Amino acid sequence: MDLKQISSPIQHHLELFEDVFAKSIRSKVVLVDFITNYIIKQKGKRVRPILVLLSAELCGGVNTKTYRGATLVEILHTATLVHDDVVDDADTRRGLASINAVWKNKIAVLMGDYLLSKGLLLSLDNDDVEFLKITSTAVKRMSEGEIHQIQKSRKLDMDEATYLRIIGDKTASLLSTCTEIGAASATADPHIRTLLRDYGENVGLAFQIRDDLLDYVGRKSITGKPTGLDLSEKKLTLPLIHALTKGPKKEGKEILSMIKNGGKKASAKRVLEFVERNGGIEYAEEKARSFSVKAKEQIASFPDTASKEALLSFADFVVERDK
Amino acid sequence: MDLKQISSPIQHHLELFEDVFAKSIRSKVVLVDFITNYIIKQKGKRVRPILVLLSAELCGGVNTKTYRGATLVEILHTATLVHDDVVDDADTRRGLASINAVWKNKIAVLMGDYLLSKGLLLSLDNDDVEFLKITSTAVKRMSEGEIHQIQKSRKLDMDEATYLRIIGDKTASLLSTCTEIGAASATADPHIRTLLRDYGENVGLAFQIRDDLLDYVGRKSITGKPTGLDLSEKKLTLPLIHALTKGPKKEGKEILSMIKNGGKKASAKRVLEFVERNGGIEYAEEKARSFSVKAKEQIASFPDTASKEALLSFADFVVERDK
Repeated sequence: MDLKQISSPIQHHLELFEDVFAKSIRSKVVLVDFITNYIIKQKGKRVRPILVLLSAELCGGVNTKTYRGATLVEILHTATLVHDDVVDDADTRRGLASINAVWKNKIAVLMGDYLLSKGLLLSLDNDDVEFLKITSTAVKRMSEGEIHQIQKSRKLDMDEATYLRIIGDKTASLLSTCTEIGAASATADPHIRTLLRDYGENVGLAFQIRDDLLDYVGRKSITGKPTGLDLSEKKLTLPLIHALTKGPKKEGKEILSMIKNGGKKASAKRVLEFVERNGGIEYAEEKARSFSVKAKEQIASFPDTASKEALLSFADFVVERDK
Repeated sequence: MDLKQISSPIQHHLELFEDVFAKSIRSKVVLVDFITNYIIKQKGKRVRPILVLLSAELCGGVNTKTYRGATLVEILHTATLVHDDVVDDADTRRGLASINAVWKNKIAVLMGDYLLSKGLLLSLDNDDVEFLKITSTAVKRMSEGEIHQIQKSRKLDMDEATYLRIIGDKTASLLSTCTEIGAASATADPHIRTLLRDYGENVGLAFQIRDDLLDYVGRKSITGKPTGLDLSEKKLTLPLIHALTKGPKKEGKEILSMIKNGGKKASAKRVLEFVERNGGIEYAEEKARSFSVKAKEQIASFPDTASKEALLSFADFVVERDK
């Protein structure tokens, strides 16, 4: 199942969401409004709104509050992307020139701030304070998680527990925000909200493990991302972390010092071979699957509906994808 | 009167604020916590917290909510500075190396996001939702105001009304946030809150006009900012806007096309002479003074206290400063 099929139970809601999203970021300042229109044209896959809408549908039905929740997460996501492109000096975004490429860094940063404030005001003006709490906690976890990963990469001393904590913070936090906000928009039942939050958290863990795994087993060329292993960032991810605990200690030390001294193509081949030989690939695949299963267990007790089916498929999708 | 004297009525509160501020941005992630400590060492002039505390003191007295309000604005201000340094590629901040210079852009942007989320959570966890509304509105105005100014600068078609709207959005919005939050922390009376907000707005307008004026009449070397007129940004500010309406139209057109074709030192001299000859300096001075007077009128009816005296002095300070 692909994302298009997964979103089919809420396709109509997704179109209404686009309306709310577009209206929510408009401005009276001509240039700001012009750039927001450009941003709408850069439309992404809408994974986050889809998760919000499916979760709400599962927990009682999409309503106007759900659209605002989906809009909040998509606005924040967009603001992050605009700022990321400045940091990465990226020229394109989703096939169109990036904001910073067209209007320079200064305007891109200001646009990010503008979007952020519009997201906050959307929630504050409608008393969606719980949405803001959920989201702010996620932003805190994401930024801490990313910095934690950089800190650990510098010292190359990552164990599995730390790895899981980091990917929980930097990736799963945002997916669980989507599913929790969706649930919170449709029901006041704290137990149901927790189930959906935990579904999102586990799907997020599975997603990131799969993502890190794809660096080892390769991606189809469609992804746009470079295929194969890039050791230059010195990121230790699950396949290698596991191989280091299973493989011979002496060889493990050699591998680590090879990574420390700069990630050349030649050493990438050696690392790959080490990881494969010591079961790192299978272990990570198994781990991703187990989080996917755990995600599905959270929503198992719900009545069988199209939205439940879609969320179950999404949990499969994140571990089966090869891009 | 300088800032030290102005802050003397709330000096004790300012020290307690430092405590709340430092505690509010701490993290369990070692590197994040290390950088927040570094940020605390980069301590600024604390103009914003001083305004929050003085306003609260005037409106009934500083309380724990006031410290949180002051912390919120200072956290947001700090986050903005960290992001600004990335955009400007700045190496130093307040005499110390900038975050991006020490830890690279990626970490600087993440730290900005982290601070932002901590500011939001501080207010959300304490149900200071009104603080967030005031602040988000200011962030929206600031980003729109800055982009509006860039838009207008490109076309060089700024009149006085547009100039005042832009500096209201980009500068006065944040000062009025401080004074409104201070008032809101101490009283529920909407009339008093409006008075303090309008005090801040007018002080902010006076501050920015004076700031733009200092580009023409020069700054003392202490400022660190370059002295004299920099036309390369093509910013049209009040002294020139006024001179263009008063001076001969033909000469005005020459001046504008000179600025359009790149701001060289030689043309700066010609522009300065044009502005002086057509009363631009006096006009801007008069305008700044009139906003300062308007600010003072807002708080005239309050009983005479040390905090009132300090806020009156601050309104004088912003138009008298030469740096």
